[in-house]
Amino acid sequence: MPQYHAKVFVTLKPSILDPQGRTVERALAHLEHANVSGVRVGKLIELTLHGDRAEVEAQLESITANVLSNPVMEDARWELAEA
Amino acid sequence: MPQYHAKVFVTLKPSILDPQGRTVERALAHLEHANVSGVRVGKLIELTLHGDRAEVEAQLESITANVLSNPVMEDARWELAEA
Repeated sequence: MPQYHAKVFVTLKPSILDPQGRTVERALAHLEHANVSGVRVGKLIELTLHGDRAEVEAQLESITANVLSNPVMEDARWELAEA
Repeated sequence: MPQYHAKVFVTLKPSILDPQGRTVERALAHLEHANVSGVRVGKLIELTLHGDRAEVEAQLESITANVLSNPVMEDARWELAEA
């Protein structure tokens, strides 16, 4: 059965405050990286799926929207590559 | 001054246990996604940098290795795109 590697990218929606990103930004400013702005911290989830491509894509779409992200606060997208 | 959008991808090294990934994997198995394996949870950090491309690239290399990741336990890579 074919095997696929997937990457799911989960980021906070632009309107949601990101205290972790703000903290990183302030730390960088103190380290003389004052030209860095707009730091946002998101998640990268890697997974392996077995099955036919069409089924795996539908499954990944569902997992991304329903399990790996909170659609109220987060945007999510995925990439699939044959292993 | 040119402005760049950077994405930094931080993932645990393959030899490091990932309890968060294991938990997601078990949750997916209970939700009838038993064909999913090897779940690993990493970080995606987005930032904006101002400056010349060569300087920004050197700066991003340094920030990625010294601030945004722990090279003992994590792998990190970055992508840069003109804003």
